[in-house]
Amino acid sequence: MCLGRCDARILAVEWLKPPHRGYTEDMARNVAQKVIAAHLISGSMEPGEEIALAIDHTLTQDATGTLVMQELEALGLDRARTEVSVQYVDHNLLQTDERNAEDHTFLHSACSRYGLWFSKPGNGVSHPTHMQRFGVPGKTMVGSDSHTPAAGSLGMLAMGVGGLEVAMAIAGRPLYLRMPEIWGVRLTGSLPPWVSAKDVILEMLRRHTVAGGVNRIIEYHGPGLEGLSAMDRHVIANMGAELGATTTIFPADEAVREFLDAEDRASDFVPIAADEGATYDVTEEIDLSSLVPLIAKPSAPDNIVEVSEVQGTEVSQVVIGSSANPGLRDFAVAAAMVRGRQTHDAISFDVNPSSREIFADLTKMGATFDLISAGARIHQAGCMGCIGMGQAPAVGQNSLRTFPRNFPGRSGTKEDSVWLCSPETAAAAALTGVITDPRELAEKLDMDWPRLELPARASVNTDMLVPPLPAEEAARVELVKGPNISALPDFPPLPDRIEAPVLLKVGDNISTDEISPAGARALPYRSNIPKLAEFTFVPVDETYPERAAQLAGGSGHIVIGGENYGQGSSREHAAITPRHLGLRVVIAKSFARIHWQNLANFGILALEFLDAADYERIGSGDKLVLESAREALRAGDELTMHNVSRSESYPLRHRLSQRQVDSVLAGGMIPLLARS
Amino acid sequence: MCLGRCDARILAVEWLKPPHRGYTEDMARNVAQKVIAAHLISGSMEPGEEIALAIDHTLTQDATGTLVMQELEALGLDRARTEVSVQYVDHNLLQTDERNAEDHTFLHSACSRYGLWFSKPGNGVSHPTHMQRFGVPGKTMVGSDSHTPAAGSLGMLAMGVGGLEVAMAIAGRPLYLRMPEIWGVRLTGSLPPWVSAKDVILEMLRRHTVAGGVNRIIEYHGPGLEGLSAMDRHVIANMGAELGATTTIFPADEAVREFLDAEDRASDFVPIAADEGATYDVTEEIDLSSLVPLIAKPSAPDNIVEVSEVQGTEVSQVVIGSSANPGLRDFAVAAAMVRGRQTHDAISFDVNPSSREIFADLTKMGATFDLISAGARIHQAGCMGCIGMGQAPAVGQNSLRTFPRNFPGRSGTKEDSVWLCSPETAAAAALTGVITDPRELAEKLDMDWPRLELPARASVNTDMLVPPLPAEEAARVELVKGPNISALPDFPPLPDRIEAPVLLKVGDNISTDEISPAGARALPYRSNIPKLAEFTFVPVDETYPERAAQLAGGSGHIVIGGENYGQGSSREHAAITPRHLGLRVVIAKSFARIHWQNLANFGILALEFLDAADYERIGSGDKLVLESAREALRAGDELTMHNVSRSESYPLRHRLSQRQVDSVLAGGMIPLLARS
Repeated sequence: MCLGRCDARILAVEWLKPPHRGYTEDMARNVAQKVIAAHLISGSMEPGEEIALAIDHTLTQDATGTLVMQELEALGLDRARTEVSVQYVDHNLLQTDERNAEDHTFLHSACSRYGLWFSKPGNGVSHPTHMQRFGVPGKTMVGSDSHTPAAGSLGMLAMGVGGLEVAMAIAGRPLYLRMPEIWGVRLTGSLPPWVSAKDVILEMLRRHTVAGGVNRIIEYHGPGLEGLSAMDRHVIANMGAELGATTTIFPADEAVREFLDAEDRASDFVPIAADEGATYDVTEEIDLSSLVPLIAKPSAPDNIVEVSEVQGTEVSQVVIGSSANPGLRDFAVAAAMVRGRQTHDAISFDVNPSSREIFADLTKMGATFDLISAGARIHQAGCMGCIGMGQAPAVGQNSLRTFPRNFPGRSGTKEDSVWLCSPETAAAAALTGVITDPRELAEKLDMDWPRLELPARASVNTDMLVPPLPAEEAARVELVKGPNISALPDFPPLPDRIEAPVLLKVGDNISTDEISPAGARALPYRSNIPKLAEFTFVPVDETYPERAAQLAGGSGHIVIGGENYGQGSSREHAAITPRHLGLRVVIAKSFARIHWQNLANFGILALEFLDAADYERIGSGDKLVLESAREALRAGDELTMHNVSRSESYPLRHRLSQRQVDSVLAGGMIPLLARS
Repeated sequence: MCLGRCDARILAVEWLKPPHRGYTEDMARNVAQKVIAAHLISGSMEPGEEIALAIDHTLTQDATGTLVMQELEALGLDRARTEVSVQYVDHNLLQTDERNAEDHTFLHSACSRYGLWFSKPGNGVSHPTHMQRFGVPGKTMVGSDSHTPAAGSLGMLAMGVGGLEVAMAIAGRPLYLRMPEIWGVRLTGSLPPWVSAKDVILEMLRRHTVAGGVNRIIEYHGPGLEGLSAMDRHVIANMGAELGATTTIFPADEAVREFLDAEDRASDFVPIAADEGATYDVTEEIDLSSLVPLIAKPSAPDNIVEVSEVQGTEVSQVVIGSSANPGLRDFAVAAAMVRGRQTHDAISFDVNPSSREIFADLTKMGATFDLISAGARIHQAGCMGCIGMGQAPAVGQNSLRTFPRNFPGRSGTKEDSVWLCSPETAAAAALTGVITDPRELAEKLDMDWPRLELPARASVNTDMLVPPLPAEEAARVELVKGPNISALPDFPPLPDRIEAPVLLKVGDNISTDEISPAGARALPYRSNIPKLAEFTFVPVDETYPERAAQLAGGSGHIVIGGENYGQGSSREHAAITPRHLGLRVVIAKSFARIHWQNLANFGILALEFLDAADYERIGSGDKLVLESAREALRAGDELTMHNVSRSESYPLRHRLSQRQVDSVLAGGMIPLLARS
């Protein structure tokens, strides 16, 4: 059953309509280029050039969605102009006070008002649920969640962006981005027993680190694809976010047809394959047969070792779930491994089905019973511990999770020790109490590699998806705002002379979790910027919010960052809350893409060192001055910051498009659009 | 399978050994008298007299258990002297930071050290799990949970007490209490369709209010018992706590035999029935055939109306679960009602199986699938929203729950609107979105009354119950204390002259939830008294903790209460945290039993007005003086408090036994025992 406005076939025709700038009519195209070309509104498909893309789908989740809905209100939207826009509720399902239920009510009312789908709490994690119910090959999607690229598993071009960009897409505006390089990863061979899709993406992280995919679209191709189901590809595309990639895409082939057929949506299938002779800007090859079980050690997703290297390490918790291993097989394989056995006494074995549909299927096939019997704690479908909303581990005790991220403190425990691995490796540890290479279970527990028999058809049930109201009825809906849902703060334009102190200097790979933490204390305030701002940078420096507040009224303050500043979650709170506290400029060696865009969208000037060595020269507390900032930004890419404390100057560049310069000068996109 | 030290049959022999004081050998006994007589260590079984009882079982849960373990440590216990002592983890399963996992580790280590059973997180709520795995007719039990009386369903005499009294029972000391009256409730007839056990206890609350059972043991008897399964009786015994009763007891008859047999524990069955001609101190009769679906309106369990009187009221949440409706049938009936249907769009339908065993059975029989398919959010076995740990409703929106309590704010939402009802009434609202008399479903939804076919044997699985270690091994175990587990504060003896201000004056029926709130903010600090104290009385007066702290160093302060002061949860934190803040005296019209004992145990002088009208004469801020307090307490039951602000005096009584006077004078039982 097709829930969206299903005109995927129109796209297939559009692909026959080149030329686009940068590509000639007879040029062989890869999958990414085909989808981009079919959605190109402006710009040239040369890597590095700004392009504008038409957006077909959007997804939002509860942690970021309340802001998106507030932004739709600020933008004065009447009705969504996308084919499909869905608001999911998956991040915070722990209703420990009224705020969460009130956010759900607000989101539901906003969906009714603006013509969006509302996926009720407990229906499932956005990424697998969107794939199951709405995903269509060849469509574009933006989502206010960094794991949105998971939809690339179906041949969609799906990107995580800031909430404001989702709001603009819902309002029918194109997505602007720099044309990424296309990174072709050719897969050969097939996965050995006990090795699964998670090990493929962990292998990519081992090879390329969390910065390896920056400004790239990863496109998997080659004969190795045959052995990977659509949900396996979801695992790989989802966690491509951890490589810093713009997105990941797979062709829409037989595996995708099978998936859509099982989901009762065979008619939504459109085949998409790279043309014969298509090329890639960067190339890579992985022989799947050569892979072994891998694991990311604490506290970064690229801290990869072979499981065999860390065998015997004591574990106190094992968690199966999240959008990084959301498929029926991911849970079914764990259930098959623990069937008739018992988890280790010292282990808390937490299982969190990723969607209601998968929970229903697991239950129907007996896997839920096997898991419960083996000692699993079964949790409602949602993101749970992946976003620090539950099952936080004890300090320093090892927790093995099938999740995508293990940034420090993301679990909810400040000094956590979280490892990332496949369901096979996780279940092995649940049984033995120590990290165990699943390939050794034959010997250790007399266990054969489970050959799963999964149902050919999913338990499709759309009753927890509330469809958009008809336009006339929608126009009469009032937004229901609880007392915790504040108005968006009003941000003034960029002053012409910036004179401000460096309030904080941080190192490389600072994540948005560190800038604006999620977790049980902060997340309930996601709709209340002044309150949420009290948590800004607290994981890095507890004194930041207070010191920033003391400077309020002046021309704000500056933060200095290292490489890959703002990696991780797409949450735009990481731009809004420091901005609310007076942040005007971030100078870093490099920026993570989504956060960089969020900074521009909320009027924070993001500058890169031309000479990375200058990073060392600036100290916390230094007073920096940028003269004639407005003129300098309009004049070109480079400008000079003076350090009056040290009588030095640093050449910097901003990389902003004219559109982004306008946003920064206006104080952000909302004041800019409100004025126009 | 019997997990305890099964010598229930010895008891049956002991019952042949009267006379005890107050009863002659040939006197016909009711069930309560039989169990008391068999455990009587000292005292006379005359209502009002202090008796000492030998205790066979104890149960503790995580919210109160960490303190009990700290108390065992303070008492210097080597090994539990009870037959069965079990530490459950059910109250706080939301691990939003490291403290919860650390408490679990601490509890597990303390069980290993002291020879207790440890029921792992996710294994289930203490009351149904204890009944399923350990309950034996005729045994006595104390539990640091006010719903401990639920075990009366099997013919146990089970009482909720403060944690320190549980610790003393574990250490082999008797339980002291005033011999209650025995209140015989004769049941006749049988329940009509759509009416279930919950309606029986709601009928009792309608008749007798939350104070109706004070100083009474409720004993159900009569031909109506035949139609009530052991789990139905659990519902009635559990929520007998809401009547303020000391406990509730049922005979151990065929229904109990059937239950134990289904639990693979047929050999633990011992029949117990009242003797022919046994009498009761108070008598009552309920014709089950005359009952109708009842519901407790917000915000007290005795705020009862017929469901038909409030039909059509809009509902936003329905929750099935908790120890007040923990049986397989309670979930299965809801599943049968929603099978093939869908919950209303505006409803969050939360289902929280009460134990792993019941979750497994529900899954095996297909009910879990039916619930998921109908839109239920399934939560791991535990107390969840019943103790404010999850699924808090929105402000002012109606939440229908099968829970035992709806005190204001207990749900986690300060201005909540929680109703208490049967699973039938709850499921009816889940389907219709409004309060609905389930008897009208035939007409409204063409629904027949579901006749359930439940499995004859339970999915018995003891693997999440960690047994006590052998003594030698246990002696070598070190307690594992995380940084959030503080030492117990040291409390000084009662001064001879008390001169202190009235810091707070409260009304009737103040609950321990209002004195020391649970919920997501406070509960994580349950092992950290100084931190938890910051929440004391906050639901009643946010300024209390700070005002109390400002008086620190003086001779403390006084609180004035109305009737039934300290009702509700057994948590001794409600005595310890105000004591930590300087509370020395509470003067009230009357006290709830468990809290009254907790006050004495922690050195707070609880005094009752001889003339209730004096309550009106005292104002907040008045300075009260009690001269020669130590001598006055020893001299007799009555003493006089002077109000120097108003130049008045009030005659008061303390009702304390000599043992309790010693405790209050010493500053509490721990300093008293430590000194002896």
